[in-house]
Amino acid sequence: MSRSAFDAFDGLDPLVDLVQALKRLPGVGPKSAQRLAFHLLQNDRQAATALGESLLKAVAEIRHCSMCNNFCHSDVCSICSDTRRQPSLLCVVETPADLAAIEATQTYRGYYYVLMGRASPLDGVRPESLDWPKLSQRLDDSEVREVILATNFTNEGEATAVFLTDRIRRMALKVSRLARGVPIGGELEYTDPSTVARALLDRRQLGTETD
Amino acid sequence: MSRSAFDAFDGLDPLVDLVQALKRLPGVGPKSAQRLAFHLLQNDRQAATALGESLLKAVAEIRHCSMCNNFCHSDVCSICSDTRRQPSLLCVVETPADLAAIEATQTYRGYYYVLMGRASPLDGVRPESLDWPKLSQRLDDSEVREVILATNFTNEGEATAVFLTDRIRRMALKVSRLARGVPIGGELEYTDPSTVARALLDRRQLGTETD
Ligand SMILES: [Zn+2]
Ligand SMILES: [Zn+2]
Repeated sequence: MSRSAFDAFDGLDPLVDLVQALKRLPGVGPKSAQRLAFHLLQNDRQAATALGESLLKAVAEIRHCSMCNNFCHSDVCSICSDTRRQPSLLCVVETPADLAAIEATQTYRGYYYVLMGRASPLDGVRPESLDWPKLSQRLDDSEVREVILATNFTNEGEATAVFLTDRIRRMALKVSRLARGVPIGGELEYTDPSTVARALLDRRQLGTETD
Repeated sequence: MSRSAFDAFDGLDPLVDLVQALKRLPGVGPKSAQRLAFHLLQNDRQAATALGESLLKAVAEIRHCSMCNNFCHSDVCSICSDTRRQPSLLCVVETPADLAAIEATQTYRGYYYVLMGRASPLDGVRPESLDWPKLSQRLDDSEVREVILATNFTNEGEATAVFLTDRIRRMALKVSRLARGVPIGGELEYTDPSTVARALLDRRQLGTETD
């Protein structure tokens, strides 16, 4: 006997499609997809319309900055367009939220590169799947002298840092890592700005004999 | 120092709008709204587009059946249009999912009325806020002789049933309630069909001396 999640919306194609689309959101199962669809159509059609429109608009308008890879409206984002920053420093982070965590310290005046991901060997995401060519290009074409690796201090972030350290050293650039002021296992996004600021000041160069 | 959920998308209006729209979903806080937006734009733009389009389509095309109040494409849904059903029986349920639970028993051949909600005194939702006029109209204009109250056996469902029993009796109609084969505190949607079928057969008339 069929008791699938769609029985309640039997024959209502737009609703079945909506439930299917909601199910693709991470963490949303068949039952909660049905509840969400029900809630939106019954109690908050305004929210449904706003979400529908903003999804299509974001997909249409948001792309990646050609320099730092962060989300961006135009070809080059506002940070990369800011000529008052220090061109010799490039801070590599995993996500836009991590970039925001560094900016919030108000102590960093270099540029950024956003990986938009991390190596995750346990999930089968090898470091090679990061867009290394784009970052490599960024380093080639610029006055960058030091790359600050600000990936998270998780297994994935550390694996990513190890991979990048190796690649960047071959380009004869200085590589540093945030000091371990950030708690082991912690994520930048959830660390208070003063700790992040401390870790930034205490960054240590990689590849020296004190390693 | 600002560490709001939007810092990461600073100046990116379409992204800020998307995060705001996602936050209106029940159970989605600022942090998970940001993570959802990030995931959709970074890893699954196809899902974002599908969800955006299906939301707008559902809002545009889904309305309520003029007879049973269930979600519907057209003026009258397929169940209400089915003339082989028994016009003397009307089963009142809280949600489309509850209707599906009754249909899944394959033992009921009457019609339905979907409240699209329930009285919830503790949340300040008084029974009067249910669309009683629409149900009343449905009862007035039809050959219904018996109303089967199939609201859930929760506090809210019971309060709703008490309210409706009172109103429907004044119309000189027979009122029955599903038998308590459904566990106390349980919800129809999660009950196996055979239990629901049993409860349907054992429904008892309300307002008699054996009450
Ligand atoms: Zn940029
Ligand atoms: Zn109907």
